[in-house]
Amino acid sequence: MRSFAGCLSMESPTGVAATPRALPYYVAFSQLLGLTAVATTGAWLGLYRGGIAWEGALQFNVHPLCMVIGLIFLQGDALLVYRVFRNETKRTTKVLHGLLHVFAFIIALVGLVAVFDYHRKKGYADLYSLHSWCGILTFVLYFVQWLVGFSFFLFPGASFSLRSRYRPQHVFFGATIFLFAVGTALLGLKEALLFKLGAKYSTFEPEGVLANVLGLLLAGFGVTVLYILTRTEWKRPLQAEEQALSMDFKTLTEGDSPGSQ
Amino acid sequence: MRSFAGCLSMESPTGVAATPRALPYYVAFSQLLGLTAVATTGAWLGLYRGGIAWEGALQFNVHPLCMVIGLIFLQGDALLVYRVFRNETKRTTKVLHGLLHVFAFIIALVGLVAVFDYHRKKGYADLYSLHSWCGILTFVLYFVQWLVGFSFFLFPGASFSLRSRYRPQHVFFGATIFLFAVGTALLGLKEALLFKLGAKYSTFEPEGVLANVLGLLLAGFGVTVLYILTRTEWKRPLQAEEQALSMDFKTLTEGDSPGSQ
Repeated sequence: MRSFAGCLSMESPTGVAATPRALPYYVAFSQLLGLTAVATTGAWLGLYRGGIAWEGALQFNVHPLCMVIGLIFLQGDALLVYRVFRNETKRTTKVLHGLLHVFAFIIALVGLVAVFDYHRKKGYADLYSLHSWCGILTFVLYFVQWLVGFSFFLFPGASFSLRSRYRPQHVFFGATIFLFAVGTALLGLKEALLFKLGAKYSTFEPEGVLANVLGLLLAGFGVTVLYILTRTEWKRPLQAEEQALSMDFKTLTEGDSPGSQ
Repeated sequence: MRSFAGCLSMESPTGVAATPRALPYYVAFSQLLGLTAVATTGAWLGLYRGGIAWEGALQFNVHPLCMVIGLIFLQGDALLVYRVFRNETKRTTKVLHGLLHVFAFIIALVGLVAVFDYHRKKGYADLYSLHSWCGILTFVLYFVQWLVGFSFFLFPGASFSLRSRYRPQHVFFGATIFLFAVGTALLGLKEALLFKLGAKYSTFEPEGVLANVLGLLLAGFGVTVLYILTRTEWKRPLQAEEQALSMDFKTLTEGDSPGSQ
């Protein structure tokens, strides 16, 4: 597999489609935003919440950090794999996409266990807030999307036709789940601020301002990833063998679909 | 102009492209979700917040109602215009799209004035929370997008080539601003709940549950509108005269763009 930097470069060896000129800058910008968001989450928890541990009050802090790293940064990067690694074989790119989602899922699971365990020890109620409702919905959808994606695209059973029909749904729901994760993080951030600061939030306390900036960074990362994903000219080009397969399929099924639905 | 119901029907008179089979059901579902969200907002304010007025404490309640009607329901419907009115002339559809956005903007402006005026009378601070930062950003972007959209697409000055290059950006940022509006509403809802209910939120108070359901309805409306917008097969077909123009343009500019960017 070529290096990340190599794939982002503008060189275009024979037989390899050129990387669109502006794409590397947008990808770099998305990574800058994403990493700054992760660092700001760490800074917020370190400066104003006493840091991170698996015991006592600090166990709660594992939750926001894991969710931001797993369900936002890594999930976002998993979506970008097809734009960044444009000239690898489809299989390599798919495996990398699936693996990044596995890491994201495991890290998010640790974050979920942390908050439920913390609630249990403190005797707090679970799943009463809009943040928790959106969060649990996002996590369940993420798991289902991974399972369905795996069985359609990585498991060898599914036919080419089935994959082609499912692909747009997979892409749409992938982007939606990612946006839900960003929205849920903002709700959680707001909850954490209001529980602790209360009326002091309105006096522009440094913690409140830092957390607001973190919210904008997370939203900015979400928008940038979405922008890169939806630019038609930036879609991954078909490799020679995929093109042949796709043509065969087109010939076989021509006139099959009535164009509706 | 044909009626909304007529445009949603499956009849296909000669010379008029057929409406995709599933589209009307998805549009109907989006309207059901959107109207239920508006009604639930009204129910929440009426049942638990004392209703609506321009004076006293009730002036605040104008804010959520106007924002949900303007920046969520009407803005969402403005985005759907090109999918629903598929066989009108481009000009008619554009004017309807622009007008719906004007109504949305005016209603949202009333909602904004309500909250700033309420804060002023009560001596509360402005623009300190993540909700307010996201909200003001959304509103400014919405206004800029409307101005730029108007000068490119409705004002006769812009060339065909300029319009074609700007269109994907307009569509992307339109969808993004709409999603920001939904996210901001959820943040505001959460803020209103935590300020009033505080720790009682965790005891599954009826107001908390109703507001959580409202949050999910708003998110559901957002996702459904986005799904309808992004289904490639549901895009508005080019009318005969637009097709001719587009072909001319293609012939004129062939080889013009290097395919990058």
